[in-house]
Amino acid sequence: MQLGKIVGTVVASQKDQQLEGMKFHLVQTTDLTGAVTGKPIVAVDSVGAGVGELILFASGSSARQTETTNNRPVDAVIMAIVDLVEVGGETLYRK
Amino acid sequence: MQLGKIVGTVVASQKDQQLEGMKFHLVQTTDLTGAVTGKPIVAVDSVGAGVGELILFASGSSARQTETTNNRPVDAVIMAIVDLVEVGGETLYRK
Amino acid sequence: MQLGKIVGTVVASQKDQQLEGMKFHLVQTTDLTGAVTGKPIVAVDSVGAGVGELILFASGSSARQTETTNNRPVDAVIMAIVDLVEVGGETLYRK
Amino acid sequence: MQLGKIVGTVVASQKDQQLEGMKFHLVQTTDLTGAVTGKPIVAVDSVGAGVGELILFASGSSARQTETTNNRPVDAVIMAIVDLVEVGGETLYRK
Amino acid sequence: MQLGKIVGTVVASQKDQQLEGMKFHLVQTTDLTGAVTGKPIVAVDSVGAGVGELILFASGSSARQTETTNNRPVDAVIMAIVDLVEVGGETLYRK
Repeated sequence: MQLGKIVGTVVASQKDQQLEGMKFHLVQTTDLTGAVTGKPIVAVDSVGAGVGELILFASGSSARQTETTNNRPVDAVIMAIVDLVEVGGETLYRK
Repeated sequence: MQLGKIVGTVVASQKDQQLEGMKFHLVQTTDLTGAVTGKPIVAVDSVGAGVGELILFASGSSARQTETTNNRPVDAVIMAIVDLVEVGGETLYRK
Repeated sequence: MQLGKIVGTVVASQKDQQLEGMKFHLVQTTDLTGAVTGKPIVAVDSVGAGVGELILFASGSSARQTETTNNRPVDAVIMAIVDLVEVGGETLYRK
Repeated sequence: MQLGKIVGTVVASQKDQQLEGMKFHLVQTTDLTGAVTGKPIVAVDSVGAGVGELILFASGSSARQTETTNNRPVDAVIMAIVDLVEVGGETLYRK
Repeated sequence: MQLGKIVGTVVASQKDQQLEGMKFHLVQTTDLTGAVTGKPIVAVDSVGAGVGELILFASGSSARQTETTNNRPVDAVIMAIVDLVEVGGETLYRK
């Protein structure tokens, strides 16, 4: 999984029938403090995350192992909202 | 998923039997405004997208989770046509 | 999928039993005109392609969705021979 | 698989229901001596590894082939704790 | 698949139960002459390859399509030992 921040939304009314009703979030990977570093990917949400939150996302076939994404053409899913990032006893991020 | 723009077509008359009748689109990844940035990949379309459109594509095994691509040797599928990209309340792309 | 050119051959007499009789092609990714650009990968052929041809290859689990590669330890398959690459109404490659 | 070092922890109370009770480790890839080199990823542990240890992790669908991660939205798993790294008869790392 | 050279060994006594008895090889990708170029990955062997040999390895779910690795948390497998690499009628590597 990777740390990412939800930075925006992609609206797409015309989509594969298995994606009806799904919302697409723009996610940028972050460093351990939650600062965005990488280029954006688009992910589906399985945990009720919102714009601005630090999250974890899973990629590839693992992105289909949630009730929301099962058997759908989705290759990235938000599967956790981050409360805390701790490295060497130091808290680098707290929600 | 990734944002991409359909920039062209690949014609291939000799192909694996499971790909008969399929059209191959050239897709370049884009930034959040829809400007092309990345190197081209080739994707199959499941939503009736055309050249010049901003789309979302899924990669890997997730690319096979559409009626069009199911069980076929396809590792990238166009699964949505983008209407709008919004970041921080600002509209960066509108169809 | 990616555009690639078959640039050579890898011979390997000692291989996993599920690969008996398979030929391994060296494939380099190309730009849209068919000029080689990337580092070589090794792919199995499902369409009767030969050295020097511009082809499409699929990667990952999708590489196993052909009769030739089904259930075998193969992560890249040549699934089409390219006739034509067209971008913006211009023909960049013709076989 | 890749060599990595566990450098910290991600706490996430709100997560997909299939991830209840799981701990998320921050892992950085290392060189052959165990010195960290790469950017951090987040992995689930199947072997009882702890912070500071040199481990092996598997990615993608292979990350779901443990009792802990089976059928869950997890794309990286720690599946071994490294005792020794040996290159050319020389020991580059010993636990 | 990719060309790689076995450069060493990783010993890990504490590992996922499905990996009992498995040996982990350090593999570096090579150019077409067999000279190492890339950063090391760790692979399981299904063909009896040894340190110093030029091999082919498969990645991702395809790495689990051998008798040795089936259903195990393994994302890279050595599935062939290279005898010969030929490009443009020229032999770049011979065992």
